[in-house]
Amino acid sequence: MKPSSAPDSSESRKVMFNADKEKDFSTWFSEIISKAGLADLRYNVKGFVVFREWSVLAFNEMYALLERILQRKGHWPVLMPALIPEENLNKEAGHVKGFVPEVFWVTEHGAGEKFEQRMALRPTSETAFYHMYALWIRSYKDLPFKRYQRCQVWRHETNATRPFLRSREFYWIEAHCAFQNEQGAWSQVREDMETTKEFMHETLGVPFIFFQRPQWDRFAGAVETFAADTLTPDGRVLQQPSTHYLGENFSKPFNVQYVDASGAQQYAHLTCYGPAISRIFASVIAVHGDKKGLRFPFKVAPVQVVIVPFLNGVNDSKVLAYCEKLRVRLSLKFRVHTDASETRAGEKFYFWEMKGVPFRVEVGSRELKSKKAIVFRRDSETKKEVSLPGVERFIEKTALDYDATLRMTADKAFKNNTVNVSSWDELKAHARDGKFIRANFCSTAMNGVECAEKIEKELGLSVRGSIPFREEKTFGPCVACGKPSTKVVYVGKQY
Amino acid sequence: MKPSSAPDSSESRKVMFNADKEKDFSTWFSEIISKAGLADLRYNVKGFVVFREWSVLAFNEMYALLERILQRKGHWPVLMPALIPEENLNKEAGHVKGFVPEVFWVTEHGAGEKFEQRMALRPTSETAFYHMYALWIRSYKDLPFKRYQRCQVWRHETNATRPFLRSREFYWIEAHCAFQNEQGAWSQVREDMETTKEFMHETLGVPFIFFQRPQWDRFAGAVETFAADTLTPDGRVLQQPSTHYLGENFSKPFNVQYVDASGAQQYAHLTCYGPAISRIFASVIAVHGDKKGLRFPFKVAPVQVVIVPFLNGVNDSKVLAYCEKLRVRLSLKFRVHTDASETRAGEKFYFWEMKGVPFRVEVGSRELKSKKAIVFRRDSETKKEVSLPGVERFIEKTALDYDATLRMTADKAFKNNTVNVSSWDELKAHARDGKFIRANFCSTAMNGVECAEKIEKELGLSVRGSIPFREEKTFGPCVACGKPSTKVVYVGKQY
Repeated sequence: MKPSSAPDSSESRKVMFNADKEKDFSTWFSEIISKAGLADLRYNVKGFVVFREWSVLAFNEMYALLERILQRKGHWPVLMPALIPEENLNKEAGHVKGFVPEVFWVTEHGAGEKFEQRMALRPTSETAFYHMYALWIRSYKDLPFKRYQRCQVWRHETNATRPFLRSREFYWIEAHCAFQNEQGAWSQVREDMETTKEFMHETLGVPFIFFQRPQWDRFAGAVETFAADTLTPDGRVLQQPSTHYLGENFSKPFNVQYVDASGAQQYAHLTCYGPAISRIFASVIAVHGDKKGLRFPFKVAPVQVVIVPFLNGVNDSKVLAYCEKLRVRLSLKFRVHTDASETRAGEKFYFWEMKGVPFRVEVGSRELKSKKAIVFRRDSETKKEVSLPGVERFIEKTALDYDATLRMTADKAFKNNTVNVSSWDELKAHARDGKFIRANFCSTAMNGVECAEKIEKELGLSVRGSIPFREEKTFGPCVACGKPSTKVVYVGKQY
Repeated sequence: MKPSSAPDSSESRKVMFNADKEKDFSTWFSEIISKAGLADLRYNVKGFVVFREWSVLAFNEMYALLERILQRKGHWPVLMPALIPEENLNKEAGHVKGFVPEVFWVTEHGAGEKFEQRMALRPTSETAFYHMYALWIRSYKDLPFKRYQRCQVWRHETNATRPFLRSREFYWIEAHCAFQNEQGAWSQVREDMETTKEFMHETLGVPFIFFQRPQWDRFAGAVETFAADTLTPDGRVLQQPSTHYLGENFSKPFNVQYVDASGAQQYAHLTCYGPAISRIFASVIAVHGDKKGLRFPFKVAPVQVVIVPFLNGVNDSKVLAYCEKLRVRLSLKFRVHTDASETRAGEKFYFWEMKGVPFRVEVGSRELKSKKAIVFRRDSETKKEVSLPGVERFIEKTALDYDATLRMTADKAFKNNTVNVSSWDELKAHARDGKFIRANFCSTAMNGVECAEKIEKELGLSVRGSIPFREEKTFGPCVACGKPSTKVVYVGKQY
């Protein structure tokens, strides 16, 4: 059984949406967040966002899909405490340095009784998970050990708050895996990249490039960091899920050891993976939205089918009764809502198109007579007459095509997303293209950091890294310093 | 598609479980939590629990079922910030008094920069929701306005930690509803009672009695409080979901107003409802468990069907290939795991019985030949030969009977759960019965509090309240003070 209704009020139905995503993405994004009821910035704690009905319903579908993928690949869910004692955070030097500046601290309770030790609201949970892994993992037979949690994390960001893109509390999944050796851990990194592809591209239709980050841009405590970057409609680079090879950096201070087949104690090799549901949601709406509003991928649409009865005062009760029968039938397979409010049909059309509902079924007395409904697709904005008993089958079949169309449209826009440059002047000339700029670079090891800083400072561009597990052939000297290059890197304007 | 595997390790399989729930519930409960991998108390923040795989998988199913019920009844999900500014908490006098003593305070961030105002980790979210309701609710057309969130809350409890029953962080749903008037709010209270019945009794098979709490035992800030009490196997009363009529207590300080049909400003009448998933889970395992371990209701079992291949070294590859085919087939409908580990079949049986898996399908070369599998039911511990192609249908059909059996068994144990007493001496005599004691009582208004305190102090019993919306006829004077009684109340030993 699927939810049979949808949050709305007759007043809000009268809202017209008309913002040009391509010309002014920032306005489009703010407008759709407010008009579609996705989030609210008016809560009285700075940097915190209230996630509203229409995004939370989609979050839930997204979580369910991603958790299913993770479970199929042998990850199991746990729930770790939200509080992390300061002593845990302090155990891994790089981790402290990276996260402590952004920590919210719990210091007291009740009438002001101090805790012996400050506790962090988790900014990420390595130091909670690995504390327990030291207790749970005993033998090589326990490995690989793959767990995840669905939770929120808190980071005291100083940049401006933008719902879904950046706020001080956001929702994600974090997966933490332990292996006998480096090899096992590396195959997990590749699996995480595959999972990202399956979830973000194949399921949600959001294209991206997975990069190996330069050494100066690693996750705090990681040996190597890999991250998916996508593009916003205004051509900025947005980081999506990242996966990290942690080596023994955490297993040593946390004492995550196992007994190997020969009876010897060994440190486990760890990886962690963090897909942020709230931020992926941002990409989903940014990539697929259009002038009329949202366009949800079918699989995660809060309402997949909206039924709009044509009421003209003559056969209304018959039409409504049929719509209810249809709703009950369709609800066995889809998330369906009937909009029987007193608003004019045209207004309902605009409203549910703005809300991104993939299919609209229109039924009036003419349709009842001809036994055919009109089915509207939000992706192509086309209508088709479909025999009433065949509506489920039509939607079921067309939904695949609908999702594929969204994905292919997004892929097409993403396709010519790279431009090659061979010199500083060319890099400068393309700085505002809103694309990934492919450039030769001296080094992605620590000795390349000065060139990256030069690019950042003078052009406002960020070096995102190189394509992992596939060496790209360089085609000239480093664009920043002119020395021989060792890597092809991708440069872009960071969101 | 359902998850195809289950978290386990070959070592843990050797665990034998044998604790007598009826004789020593406390030991049974601790043992099953550890052996079945439900929770871990060894995290290094006092009062905090790590919820492990086997409980979190069930939590997820429970959340999905309860959210579906709430959505069907017109509630929509939102996600409120976890931090509540002190000024919000302070707005409703009763609320402050009740919750502030248990609050965890966030006072600083980063290197120790203080916030201008302390923020509470939400102990409950009235003061976050209603801050937003003042902005969201405008007109009578917006009402009823029904929202909920799935989240954790934090309370600095001083009583001993018991996983699922009491910990400083726990998981629940909180629903907050706004209405035009008292009448609307009261029908919501009744709906919440129905929802509790549908979820906790009909779906999960946990029997309870819904009480109207005495005036001295109201939720902090409520006009009236109603709560479901169930019994633990050692005869203690455990509070489960509660629903509260808040009247205008919060809408006034938070300014939750609407314009009525005549154009006048009115305060909304509010209700809140709080089913705690982690605590309902405690009742589910406590009520249905037995000497051999857990017995999960089918609908929320992390694994619903375990396939155990009989391997004897002769036809093993054939048997395993068939089991895999069967697993794939059954996975279309159920959560299935094949235990192909090298443990002996007998050990696997004990292990998965301890884990509470409702159905076990045994397949060996004999079964392949006869085209019949043996299907074992965890509830009745009976086996049945079922034709291999008919296994799905058998399980699908039998699952209903399985859940009904668990529920009826629990109902039977709960049935003779009340004893009537007419005097103090009788009350005293029955104080250790482990039942609800039905007694005449002077008053459940504030003037009855002394009698309740006497019962609490001298007999260690708690006055739970009276049956709501149905006046029970008294049958004698107040058991505590001997004055004329106005109410029949139920008394019990609180968990």
